[in-house]
Amino acid sequence: MKIMRVEKTLVSTNRIGELGHRPLLVVTDKPGGTPQVAVDAIGCIPGDWVICVGSSAAREAAGSKSYPSDLTIVGIIDQWSAE
Amino acid sequence: MKIMRVEKTLVSTNRIGELGHRPLLVVTDKPGGTPQVAVDAIGCIPGDWVICVGSSAAREAAGSKSYPSDLTIVGIIDQWSAE
Amino acid sequence: MKIMRVEKTLVSTNRIGELGHRPLLVVTDKPGGTPQVAVDAIGCIPGDWVICVGSSAAREAAGSKSYPSDLTIVGIIDQWSAE
Amino acid sequence: MKIMRVEKTLVSTNRIGELGHRPLLVVTDKPGGTPQVAVDAIGCIPGDWVICVGSSAAREAAGSKSYPSDLTIVGIIDQWSAE
Amino acid sequence: MKIMRVEKTLVSTNRIGELGHRPLLVVTDKPGGTPQVAVDAIGCIPGDWVICVGSSAAREAAGSKSYPSDLTIVGIIDQWSAE
Repeated sequence: MKIMRVEKTLVSTNRIGELGHRPLLVVTDKPGGTPQVAVDAIGCIPGDWVICVGSSAAREAAGSKSYPSDLTIVGIIDQWSAE
Repeated sequence: MKIMRVEKTLVSTNRIGELGHRPLLVVTDKPGGTPQVAVDAIGCIPGDWVICVGSSAAREAAGSKSYPSDLTIVGIIDQWSAE
Repeated sequence: MKIMRVEKTLVSTNRIGELGHRPLLVVTDKPGGTPQVAVDAIGCIPGDWVICVGSSAAREAAGSKSYPSDLTIVGIIDQWSAE
Repeated sequence: MKIMRVEKTLVSTNRIGELGHRPLLVVTDKPGGTPQVAVDAIGCIPGDWVICVGSSAAREAAGSKSYPSDLTIVGIIDQWSAE
Repeated sequence: MKIMRVEKTLVSTNRIGELGHRPLLVVTDKPGGTPQVAVDAIGCIPGDWVICVGSSAAREAAGSKSYPSDLTIVGIIDQWSAE
């Protein structure tokens, strides 16, 4: 799993129905890093350092085997400092 | 999921039958970035910033479990500026 | 999916039975790029620019769910110029 | 599989239920490398060099097909020196 | 699939039972490249250039759908010279 920081919520009005209304968050692996989009299965706020699972495990972690996610937030890290 | 920009439509007359007639789009993660090919499940136009799902989730997002996609556009981002 | 160029056929006499006799091609994403091996599901010749699907979709695209491929050529691009 | 070194335990109190209480470890591929998070299926201690399996194989290696892992430690290497 | 060179056997006494006794080999994509670990489904020796399959296809190529591999050697290349 990857260690990422939550930057902000991503607004995408025009999306496929399978995504439902789950929040999509912009995450980066370090300040200035390439932003990616993760499905929030926990309830995070910007600034949180989180654990993101990818690969096929991201689907079930997002709630169901058919959920179209390849990156899902599965935990908030209690303490983390980027180096 | 990755944040990509739609560049143009990709024409591939000679393709396997499983791809059907779904539009294939050239996308990049930044200006001058390596172009990739994504299946359009939404209806995008060049210039749109979109959310692309990869891994095994790309198949079902493209319409069925047996669709041969590893990158599918699942949403258009309302507002995005590349930095 | 990735955009790759077919370089040549790869000869591997000693291979697992599941690979069968499908042609294996050496492909690169750009001149001088790292060569990879793709299963040809179309019928390509060296110099063709092709669409390669990876991840779990590569298996079914190669003909069956149990085919051991992680990179399968699913289409030939009508026109492409590497930049 | 990847060769990684165990750095420390990762504490994440707020996590999805599917992760259970399996230990999560911070691993790196080299000193100063990007830290990642792996599920420990063996019983490791900091300093161990380990074999980490990714992709969909990480799920079953962690104990069940529905376990949300994309990186699982499946073996401790008897002797390894990073170069 | 990736083109890799077999470096040596990897000894891991403490491993999960699902790995069984299949040989684990250290492979690199080029001299000095990052070493990875592959399951040998062929019977290779150090110095062989081999075809490695990753993703979910690595599991079945290693012998069964539940085998915890994400990189399996599926063929030996007859002739290869690294450039």
